[in-house]
Amino acid sequence: MNQKLFFTLVIVLTALSGWAHYFTHSAGLQFVTTSAAIIMLAGLLGKATENVAHYAGERVGGFLNATFGNAAELIIAIFLIKEGLFDMVKASITGSIIGNLLLVLGLSVIAGGLKFKEQRFNPLLAGHNASLMLLAVIALFIPAVFLKQLHAERTETLSLIISGLLIVAYILWLFFSMVTHKEELADQARAEEEAEGHMWGKGTSILILIVATVFVAITSEWLVHSIKEVADSLGWSEIFVGAFVIAIVGNAAEHSAAVFLAMKNKIGASVEIAVGSSLQIALFVAPTLVFVSLLFGKPMDLVFTSYELAAIGVGAFIASSISRDGSTNWYEGVLLIIVYIILGAAFYFL
Amino acid sequence: MNQKLFFTLVIVLTALSGWAHYFTHSAGLQFVTTSAAIIMLAGLLGKATENVAHYAGERVGGFLNATFGNAAELIIAIFLIKEGLFDMVKASITGSIIGNLLLVLGLSVIAGGLKFKEQRFNPLLAGHNASLMLLAVIALFIPAVFLKQLHAERTETLSLIISGLLIVAYILWLFFSMVTHKEELADQARAEEEAEGHMWGKGTSILILIVATVFVAITSEWLVHSIKEVADSLGWSEIFVGAFVIAIVGNAAEHSAAVFLAMKNKIGASVEIAVGSSLQIALFVAPTLVFVSLLFGKPMDLVFTSYELAAIGVGAFIASSISRDGSTNWYEGVLLIIVYIILGAAFYFL
Amino acid sequence: MNQKLFFTLVIVLTALSGWAHYFTHSAGLQFVTTSAAIIMLAGLLGKATENVAHYAGERVGGFLNATFGNAAELIIAIFLIKEGLFDMVKASITGSIIGNLLLVLGLSVIAGGLKFKEQRFNPLLAGHNASLMLLAVIALFIPAVFLKQLHAERTETLSLIISGLLIVAYILWLFFSMVTHKEELADQARAEEEAEGHMWGKGTSILILIVATVFVAITSEWLVHSIKEVADSLGWSEIFVGAFVIAIVGNAAEHSAAVFLAMKNKIGASVEIAVGSSLQIALFVAPTLVFVSLLFGKPMDLVFTSYELAAIGVGAFIASSISRDGSTNWYEGVLLIIVYIILGAAFYFL
Repeated sequence: MNQKLFFTLVIVLTALSGWAHYFTHSAGLQFVTTSAAIIMLAGLLGKATENVAHYAGERVGGFLNATFGNAAELIIAIFLIKEGLFDMVKASITGSIIGNLLLVLGLSVIAGGLKFKEQRFNPLLAGHNASLMLLAVIALFIPAVFLKQLHAERTETLSLIISGLLIVAYILWLFFSMVTHKEELADQARAEEEAEGHMWGKGTSILILIVATVFVAITSEWLVHSIKEVADSLGWSEIFVGAFVIAIVGNAAEHSAAVFLAMKNKIGASVEIAVGSSLQIALFVAPTLVFVSLLFGKPMDLVFTSYELAAIGVGAFIASSISRDGSTNWYEGVLLIIVYIILGAAFYFL
Repeated sequence: MNQKLFFTLVIVLTALSGWAHYFTHSAGLQFVTTSAAIIMLAGLLGKATENVAHYAGERVGGFLNATFGNAAELIIAIFLIKEGLFDMVKASITGSIIGNLLLVLGLSVIAGGLKFKEQRFNPLLAGHNASLMLLAVIALFIPAVFLKQLHAERTETLSLIISGLLIVAYILWLFFSMVTHKEELADQARAEEEAEGHMWGKGTSILILIVATVFVAITSEWLVHSIKEVADSLGWSEIFVGAFVIAIVGNAAEHSAAVFLAMKNKIGASVEIAVGSSLQIALFVAPTLVFVSLLFGKPMDLVFTSYELAAIGVGAFIASSISRDGSTNWYEGVLLIIVYIILGAAFYFL
Repeated sequence: MNQKLFFTLVIVLTALSGWAHYFTHSAGLQFVTTSAAIIMLAGLLGKATENVAHYAGERVGGFLNATFGNAAELIIAIFLIKEGLFDMVKASITGSIIGNLLLVLGLSVIAGGLKFKEQRFNPLLAGHNASLMLLAVIALFIPAVFLKQLHAERTETLSLIISGLLIVAYILWLFFSMVTHKEELADQARAEEEAEGHMWGKGTSILILIVATVFVAITSEWLVHSIKEVADSLGWSEIFVGAFVIAIVGNAAEHSAAVFLAMKNKIGASVEIAVGSSLQIALFVAPTLVFVSLLFGKPMDLVFTSYELAAIGVGAFIASSISRDGSTNWYEGVLLIIVYIILGAAFYFL
């Protein structure tokens, strides 16, 4: 997208959402404008993070990208936690994971597959991603399986221990993929893409990063404000809103980036965005939120509902099964999208 | 088998089952003769379908084979639905899936493995089959997981949506494997086999197809008539009868074909029959039956019992694990058969 | 370890544990000394088995190794059964399986991975191991899934049938891997290692084997005697003690052997010890114990708790996912250890 148009859209939509929040009483209007603003602001935040990462040098930069890549979701979730909407937080974590593994990956694979008969990427990375995804699934299943006989206090302690271990696993993964086994896991297409994308000066990038973060935070608070009323009036459950509405709003920027890369035959980069982002949510954002909740004095545990676990497990298994061989075609994308729609329908009827 | 002998057997057994149905009162005798007749008629129906497919040209033919390959099961199931025996329908779907994935594949792999140290087939096909099988498992699990909080009406709607999506997935799979990625998925052995098997003229083939379909339908009604009485007198549960008796009767023709192919070192063709047939049941027959049930005014849902889901999941996982590498040996066949026996014992004791 | 020092330690620790058992009343002291003695005696027993196997010729030797490789665990479990501590037996089976798949394999992979960037082993063996592990998981899940509606008597019958089938699968696996497909599955490193390890004469080996077995049996009885009291005083549950304390004591000798092999870049041998040992527990030790329990007139079933099944399933899946490609690196070891710690924490809080 043209840069000028992009900035204009960011500013106009943010202003519109501010007007809706302060001067109207329509939750629907507030919700639509704020969602649109957040989608654009999240895109800006992601772009700024990449630029700052570029100037910070390879290692620190890689770390910044890996840590703040899902900053928008993290900020929205923090405001949900502040309001005590734990069910919606967990639903949005679930939704981000399956949104990335099924919707983003599926659309990318279809978009790429319609232009190219077969698209290939580094299978070693695919194998590691599958194992990491399995760890994430295991870590989220264990508390739910063992919960039945545990007191609330023990559930909390166990959640904190598991959260700590997940963050350790994530940090060691960064060390593994960026230091000790950098070459083996590198994807040429992704590297080129990143090299192209840096167009702002160092100071500008940092300024944009700060401003975007502030506005994402402000609009996220507005969004959380209007969302309950909208959901109630439409008869949607908290879990459906979290898993399908918030998750799509928070991830829209990545979605479009991944699809465009696939159409340029850079499916490896698309896979890295989709799978990498869902791993970041499961191994970094989710456990971080458990620790953040302690700051608000309302500890959130890691116990997901069986519906959410089913969705995450299903998403992880089908995505692994399809990406394991390091090659994709349009039909595999169709399978991912069909599973996403089935899950969407099931959550809608809950 | 010699053609003359085959036709003689078909006619004699069908006549016998008619005599048992109209002139005796022994449910046991009726059950045994009708089962034998259906096994032969299903074989004839399969052969006629292949012949008609041959004359219909490659594409339409492939579509016919893929759609009517399990016509016998479909017809039996329709009569069960007419009688409202939904539990037996679902059990027979379960039984067909695990019968193909475990019994047929297991016997083929053992039969081939005793003659050849290692048998190889197209691993790309194996990979896609595994992903499709996973989709089928997911689609059957979702309604059961989400059922707990749903009203009957919503269960029905969700079942219809999922059934529609499965049929879409199946049709796109046919398009993928027969049009856009035909060469990549082709199995040489299978192609040769099909070329050999066409020995009737066009008119004869169509005539046989129609006659066989009519008689399968008639004998299926007789079978459904006697089966409940036989099960009661032997103390067998409806679910055991559906999953192990009806499923074996309905699939016997395919079973023998797959085993003979494996012994001729055409394991790729055996795998295609076994896995292809179970995919057809899960992605086409099962959802079609949901829609068919609407015609009878007694809507059937897609909610399987946890026993059936365990069986289907177990069958899909062990079959995927074993076939994923595109190579088989006798011990892998043993594993499949042992899992089948374990499931049989578990269902028997229910 | 120096042989003289090793024998001295075996004798001193065994003597100490005898003194603690007969002359003190401290369950804690008894527990610590007996555990230490069993660790050493189990190591001696394993070494003696390997030596006897060496002299018995390739086939009989391979069979001996495969059957008595977990003799120490088997003996401890028999004494637990004699005391009717079925929950602890099942927990120790669970603990042995996950201890081997996660702790032993994890430590070996890390130890090897810190010295070598990538370690490779026979992927065909890895594939078969994964399929066998899946059979074991299935066999242990089926009774639990189907139990709900079964009477105690039927649970017992089903457990005996499944146990018989598992032993058949195990015997055929030995036949497959040692006779019909010996060359395909051979691991060079493992063969060399075994050739090195035989340093005692034939008669000495048999004598040591007999003496070690007798003392393992005696000390196991002492251990079982003290263990309940220790667990109670520390507030540990029977299931935690079985799964994490007894399992580690019984497997310590194998643990250290596997880690040392990995450090010598013989990761194939480490994998064979870790995965082979857990397969032996699941497919041979567990079903054998079901039959042994009949001798004591207190039939034990194969019904594991959902916690144990979750742990076994999780261990099998992550170990398969990581070893499937026939290559390991340090981070994969980290993942295995993190899953082990998560399970340990979950069991501790039960």
